[in-house]
Amino acid sequence: MKMQTIRLHTKSPSTVLCGAGALDAAAEYLKGKDALIVTDTNVDRLYAPLIAEKFPAAQVFAVPAGERNKNKKTLFLILDEMLRSHLHRSSFVVALGGGVVGDMAGLAAALYMRGTRLVQIPTTLLAQVDSSVGGKTAIDYNGVKNVIGAFYQPERVFCDPLFLKTLPRREIKCGLGEIIKTGLLDAAIGDKIAQNRGRMHDLGFLQELAADCIRFKAHVVEQDETESSGLRKCLNMGHTTGHALELLCGRRSHGEYVLIGMWLESYIAEEEEICSREYAEQVRSLISVAEPKIPSFPNAREGVKYALLDKKNEGKSNVSLILPKARGEYAELILPAEKYEKYLERL
Amino acid sequence: MKMQTIRLHTKSPSTVLCGAGALDAAAEYLKGKDALIVTDTNVDRLYAPLIAEKFPAAQVFAVPAGERNKNKKTLFLILDEMLRSHLHRSSFVVALGGGVVGDMAGLAAALYMRGTRLVQIPTTLLAQVDSSVGGKTAIDYNGVKNVIGAFYQPERVFCDPLFLKTLPRREIKCGLGEIIKTGLLDAAIGDKIAQNRGRMHDLGFLQELAADCIRFKAHVVEQDETESSGLRKCLNMGHTTGHALELLCGRRSHGEYVLIGMWLESYIAEEEEICSREYAEQVRSLISVAEPKIPSFPNAREGVKYALLDKKNEGKSNVSLILPKARGEYAELILPAEKYEKYLERL
Repeated sequence: MKMQTIRLHTKSPSTVLCGAGALDAAAEYLKGKDALIVTDTNVDRLYAPLIAEKFPAAQVFAVPAGERNKNKKTLFLILDEMLRSHLHRSSFVVALGGGVVGDMAGLAAALYMRGTRLVQIPTTLLAQVDSSVGGKTAIDYNGVKNVIGAFYQPERVFCDPLFLKTLPRREIKCGLGEIIKTGLLDAAIGDKIAQNRGRMHDLGFLQELAADCIRFKAHVVEQDETESSGLRKCLNMGHTTGHALELLCGRRSHGEYVLIGMWLESYIAEEEEICSREYAEQVRSLISVAEPKIPSFPNAREGVKYALLDKKNEGKSNVSLILPKARGEYAELILPAEKYEKYLERL
Repeated sequence: MKMQTIRLHTKSPSTVLCGAGALDAAAEYLKGKDALIVTDTNVDRLYAPLIAEKFPAAQVFAVPAGERNKNKKTLFLILDEMLRSHLHRSSFVVALGGGVVGDMAGLAAALYMRGTRLVQIPTTLLAQVDSSVGGKTAIDYNGVKNVIGAFYQPERVFCDPLFLKTLPRREIKCGLGEIIKTGLLDAAIGDKIAQNRGRMHDLGFLQELAADCIRFKAHVVEQDETESSGLRKCLNMGHTTGHALELLCGRRSHGEYVLIGMWLESYIAEEEEICSREYAEQVRSLISVAEPKIPSFPNAREGVKYALLDKKNEGKSNVSLILPKARGEYAELILPAEKYEKYLERL
């Protein structure tokens, strides 16, 4: 796939370069600049020589890998390193890794001196199609996902498929979660997925879908950068139940929980007559391409407690769900906590 | 003075209400809203009954008073309280206090769920004329002032003179520091101060000057909200040397160090021929209205170290100074660290 350029006309503009050669473009962009590359121990183990070759002048700081380290402690490790390196406001923070690295290094860049320059080089499919684009940064805190964070646009995002080759199968599935979610929001992407079920593990095809998903997300983010008009909420389809499960169990990855969340919520959409049974079955069939085994919800009462902490909610006793409605359409449903709990018990 | 309304046409707009009755306007604005009032132990001791009367439904959280508590620990105390109170994105954080409370509660509001609604009710002259307006929020960290923070506009700022009556003389002086700084940047304000030297401790006159200063600052912030074009830098006149002194000694208040910083830097402006000797003497005469006793710089080498950490600098071995040039005019001077150190030694 030829390299594609996708521009986000956000308050502070952002440009995504997507395709083979993106890493070289990043190296060119950062040449001669003062930069701190923030990565994690996994990426560093796999790619240290490549990073050193492409960014010979940059300092590299590797934080411990994994979602459980997306916390205050690691955020301040990054900030400490920025201070030690005497970074200035005109210096670059380069987040080179998956969503966890991108979220934390992005937040550190947003906070240090009230904002240094930020570049994202996502290395997982999930980060390429979703988290590196759109400026959401965050850490988890006190058991609540992403509750401390900022909207902060990277000036450039470089998505290079070369990193996908070393991804474990599970990480690919994780990215598929967000790709399928986008397919439920956008009819053209949904059709493309439905017509190419057999190619969902072909990296070339995934790279093409990734560019489609980024373009869709860019369009949404431009119109509602800080999730205030309501439009950006659509990107959270499956996330209310998915996040609650993630907090409750925490053994699988974010993308897997989004898949499971969408699956479970498709039954709520059906029962609440947001969508037809036929469409709900199509949705579940699409999800099963990536995630054939869906567990039942382990503890409804606890699950509701976590779901109530979700940022999309507006009251303190209602849960907001983004549900599939029809091909390329969605609806927000505000459900009283007790009713949501009953659904979770049955599922 | 009649209540004045000053609007900031920033990316996220902000409105300042200034004058007697502003607190009642705040009570009206927040009526029926979900709000957490963040204040400090000093303000709480003096005003708890008034706060309870004006905001009967709001929760109040008092953090330990003082600049030395403007740190990570207190920031997370506020965030913990926000989580405990189940605040949502549509809830209000109300920063009721001086600059320290405003900076920390403002940053907590910026970070919690990537941004809750924010109202500032500044209770000191310094916070009314300067820190509550313009959206700068921050904490000090690892010995560097305001190094972790965000640009985050309060949707409303309510400046009520009633709080000024209980201010110690020193706190008034502290506000005078920023007022005199504004007088060096804006000719009309400068003339007003020069013609009313005898009224600089008259609260009615100060309230009038406060509104002038806010209007000036609003105009600057609108044009350069995130201090990226360079214009907003002008507000940091005196701050490079002032901050360095504050970090080095830390016994006086921020405003006093700004006054001392402007005094010391006026000599640099004179030596570097940025301004005439005559004008530098006028500047010092104006400063002496608020601060008659100026100490010499205690430790030039250490001072340079702190000055080099300043956010205005762009390189790692230069110091940026905003210096008075002529009536209502200023200039930025980039000085090599060694040269700046020599000046500090002599002063």
